Amino acid sequence: MKSQFRHVALIGKYHAQGSRSALEDIAHFLGTQGCDVAIEQDTASNTGLTQFPTLDAAGIGAQCDLALVVGGDGTMLGIGRLLAQFGIPLVGINQGRLGFITDIAFEDYQDTLKPMLRGEFEEDRRWMMQAKVVRDGRCVFSATAMNDVVVNRGATAGMVELRVEVDGRFVANQRADGLIIASPTGSTAYALSAGGPLLHPSIPGWVLVPIAPHTLSNRPIVLSDAGEITVEIVAGRDASANFDMQSLATLLHGDRITVRRSEHQMRFLHPKGWSYFDTLRKKLHWNEGVA
Amino acid sequence: MKSQFRHVALIGKYHAQGSRSALEDIAHFLGTQGCDVAIEQDTASNTGLTQFPTLDAAGIGAQCDLALVVGGDGTMLGIGRLLAQFGIPLVGINQGRLGFITDIAFEDYQDTLKPMLRGEFEEDRRWMMQAKVVRDGRCVFSATAMNDVVVNRGATAGMVELRVEVDGRFVANQRADGLIIASPTGSTAYALSAGGPLLHPSIPGWVLVPIAPHTLSNRPIVLSDAGEITVEIVAGRDASANFDMQSLATLLHGDRITVRRSEHQMRFLHPKGWSYFDTLRKKLHWNEGVA
Amino acid sequence: MKSQFRHVALIGKYHAQGSRSALEDIAHFLGTQGCDVAIEQDTASNTGLTQFPTLDAAGIGAQCDLALVVGGDGTMLGIGRLLAQFGIPLVGINQGRLGFITDIAFEDYQDTLKPMLRGEFEEDRRWMMQAKVVRDGRCVFSATAMNDVVVNRGATAGMVELRVEVDGRFVANQRADGLIIASPTGSTAYALSAGGPLLHPSIPGWVLVPIAPHTLSNRPIVLSDAGEITVEIVAGRDASANFDMQSLATLLHGDRITVRRSEHQMRFLHPKGWSYFDTLRKKLHWNEGVA
Amino acid sequence: MKSQFRHVALIGKYHAQGSRSALEDIAHFLGTQGCDVAIEQDTASNTGLTQFPTLDAAGIGAQCDLALVVGGDGTMLGIGRLLAQFGIPLVGINQGRLGFITDIAFEDYQDTLKPMLRGEFEEDRRWMMQAKVVRDGRCVFSATAMNDVVVNRGATAGMVELRVEVDGRFVANQRADGLIIASPTGSTAYALSAGGPLLHPSIPGWVLVPIAPHTLSNRPIVLSDAGEITVEIVAGRDASANFDMQSLATLLHGDRITVRRSEHQMRFLHPKGWSYFDTLRKKLHWNEGVA
Repeated sequence: MKSQFRHVALIGKYHAQGSRSALEDIAHFLGTQGCDVAIEQDTASNTGLTQFPTLDAAGIGAQCDLALVVGGDGTMLGIGRLLAQFGIPLVGINQGRLGFITDIAFEDYQDTLKPMLRGEFEEDRRWMMQAKVVRDGRCVFSATAMNDVVVNRGATAGMVELRVEVDGRFVANQRADGLIIASPTGSTAYALSAGGPLLHPSIPGWVLVPIAPHTLSNRPIVLSDAGEITVEIVAGRDASANFDMQSLATLLHGDRITVRRSEHQMRFLHPKGWSYFDTLRKKLHWNEGVA
Repeated sequence: MKSQFRHVALIGKYHAQGSRSALEDIAHFLGTQGCDVAIEQDTASNTGLTQFPTLDAAGIGAQCDLALVVGGDGTMLGIGRLLAQFGIPLVGINQGRLGFITDIAFEDYQDTLKPMLRGEFEEDRRWMMQAKVVRDGRCVFSATAMNDVVVNRGATAGMVELRVEVDGRFVANQRADGLIIASPTGSTAYALSAGGPLLHPSIPGWVLVPIAPHTLSNRPIVLSDAGEITVEIVAGRDASANFDMQSLATLLHGDRITVRRSEHQMRFLHPKGWSYFDTLRKKLHWNEGVA
Repeated sequence: MKSQFRHVALIGKYHAQGSRSALEDIAHFLGTQGCDVAIEQDTASNTGLTQFPTLDAAGIGAQCDLALVVGGDGTMLGIGRLLAQFGIPLVGINQGRLGFITDIAFEDYQDTLKPMLRGEFEEDRRWMMQAKVVRDGRCVFSATAMNDVVVNRGATAGMVELRVEVDGRFVANQRADGLIIASPTGSTAYALSAGGPLLHPSIPGWVLVPIAPHTLSNRPIVLSDAGEITVEIVAGRDASANFDMQSLATLLHGDRITVRRSEHQMRFLHPKGWSYFDTLRKKLHWNEGVA
Repeated sequence: MKSQFRHVALIGKYHAQGSRSALEDIAHFLGTQGCDVAIEQDTASNTGLTQFPTLDAAGIGAQCDLALVVGGDGTMLGIGRLLAQFGIPLVGINQGRLGFITDIAFEDYQDTLKPMLRGEFEEDRRWMMQAKVVRDGRCVFSATAMNDVVVNRGATAGMVELRVEVDGRFVANQRADGLIIASPTGSTAYALSAGGPLLHPSIPGWVLVPIAPHTLSNRPIVLSDAGEITVEIVAGRDASANFDMQSLATLLHGDRITVRRSEHQMRFLHPKGWSYFDTLRKKLHWNEGVA
């Protein structure tokens, strides 16, 4: 039986010359399954893989019905941000330690992919965050984030004071090193290090996690993703904002960072029987006690 | 203009003889607003208020269209659990320190209630938890909880080991002093003391908070309230389960506590302009830093 | 060169019939190193090892100059509590996963012990806690603890309220599930699960860790072990106290649990080059991140 | 009876023109108690108080036997760092909210100071931290800190990786936002916000508190102040170090920050009956629960 997915795009890790043979191997395998293969253009130029058609993100969105990523969670989220608007699903093959999202080991990719290409998979959708920075009433920056939006104090600048609002309602004034607004996907990343809870991907919310808050009762809070969260810089020098990997430095007093749910979701496909909890246990070493 | 609510039930604090004059005062005021007043029967017998008709919970549910509680959050949740099935809304007047839910001070109850009786209020709905304990395939206990369901080790019994599942999927095996499953309403109570996050009432989820977990990465996790959570006693002597105030002691190995969303919601009415966040700031002393 | 330690006592795990051949092996090896070997009497009767002289704890204290424990940290602390008054040093050989204190693997015990018997070792001394319970002015219970003294609420009894004093000075009134007073040795056990810090064994102090405290700013506090700490039961039903493994249930209001430094230390010997920090990294999995 | 302290230095808040009349008032009062008063020179020039002799820190150290600080904890620690080498004791009068150390309210300073000047006081000594930064084997910076030494990642630079050693022994490699090394005095400041425990001033140790550590089991650890702690920058751009208020930006890979106990102590005098725990309860709002 042939693949349900006719046109498959192959995307490799940024600057990953070493994955050329893995990509060739996978491309050849996809051919045997009846797929037309295209290589993402940066991947092609980084690896010198020239025997396949190349496409940029827009091209992949227009022409492909599956994106197969060979790399880690970072690679997946990077390309996922670009492809989400096209609604194309992503599958992740990992050559190293498995990630939260890229959970197919390169060693058994063939056995794992075959049934997935036939349509046997679990779909896992994640909402993205649409963020912008407003200064004097004008939007001076906008970005899409999958994991988190972080507002930070300057490196040698003492605390930052932030005013948080939801849909125009005052939530709190926080003096802290910073504030993380994380999606369920981001709840296993930086927010977890800062003391935040885990959010199951089915939760339609964000968690706000203050970093080293001055007031000890300023605890993480989970808010609905249906509202708009605004964080205003009230005090503190050299504050900055981070959107997944992108940074905007030197925020000014009065700058307002707003976060709302993007209209797009990332669609990840996992092997049949995949469980979010299995991944969690493995990644967080829940089998290993102290004593 | 007359009250939208024709029949109002008045409910006092359990064993609260002291609130008789307050209740009389409020009953008289409700009369001036065009309401028929009934007194909840335990309240009537505790306070000796005999000049009004008395009703039990079922009677209140059948005949009244508003329940006015004079007391703290505990009183509110106690009567609320009984009334939820009837869909009757509750308003809380507090003679002491304001609570998370009972947020009308006795001193200004008249000015606050007048517009509310005319229909100017904010409605705040909270899902309840339906819990049961299954032993050898048979349900041996069932309860409704507003705040939390807690599974605890015995007092002098070392740890308990719990197996957590969601909709039949294995989540984790936890060795700890216990596990709290809290609703958004309960997230400001015991779960907060044990290190859990705050959940906004709009979040359709529960938070699982392990108490003193053996494995340091066993962090609080927020799960959807659409699923059924099961906690099985794997090891540990004298474990017990608590459902808000009710306790079931001496759980056996293999006992399974299940929690799902009740089909009923509590309906709380707040004065126009009420904000959950204002209450949070006040109750958690967010205005006061350390230094 | 012969062993510096002439008379060595061998102690096995409680109820550990399975360790008989390991004990025989070690006893024989000690003979080749010029040591006279005695077997602790419970160990002898549990394992049927009858070819050696047997001694109880007092006999070991009087006649031996080294105690060699084959088991885990629990076994070590159990016998150590009894031997501390005699000043005899202990060495731990572990047949399973290495502990914080029992850090010699059975597989290489011969290579490790040889230089230690010749006097090449690191000595690691730990103060013990002397605790007692005073009711109506009379001591009704006393115990020695190596890890911690814990005051707990009853299993189904809501919070306990505790009044903490140091040398007669009021420290705090705490409403919580309980309070842990842990030594540096105990700081890697229960106290760690409840959110306490690690205390290096060289710190002359105890850490007080509240369990699920009602007041969020009730944080762990490290106090000098030169003072006497008193915990009084102010409110709460069925509170209990635990001293390492021993429990005293049903404490009454007004009961006072006092903790001070015992006059005795445990003396643990480790292989030359042993580092507390190496053990910590291994036991706490510090090499393994989330991602 | 006359003051035990003959020469008293008066020190005001930095840039605090407003405190001139308070200072004059106190100076006059000290005269009535038989003290010679000198004004610290910056205080004199800031306030225009010209009728008294002025002295710099060295002069105060040489000629005075008491320093009276009018301001908050920050002012106290600032001048204390300069005076510690002279062994001169400090007393703090606070015009605003009382601090952890500046605990005499301006309203009743006369009644409080009279017995203190006669010799009735509690002395409270605090060790300082001596820190330096070593690059390529050369010391490029050194500073004294009372509260903490902090190593931080750059503002928009992801994590920093730090290698921690104690007396040349490897403790841990930490990937985090940063690491705080706090004294008992500093344990109520930034370290507390980052999740550290309180250290009683009698504890001869420092607490290391990782900020948002990647590895969840990287918990705060209390180490003896008898050893030398070294933190080496292993990875991360634009790391910086902070010593109380002073900052050293742009640390390089391989830079080593070392911290050891200074040979000097600050000496604070408090009114008879002063208790560290009373201050703690007040500052941390321990009387106020959540519900």
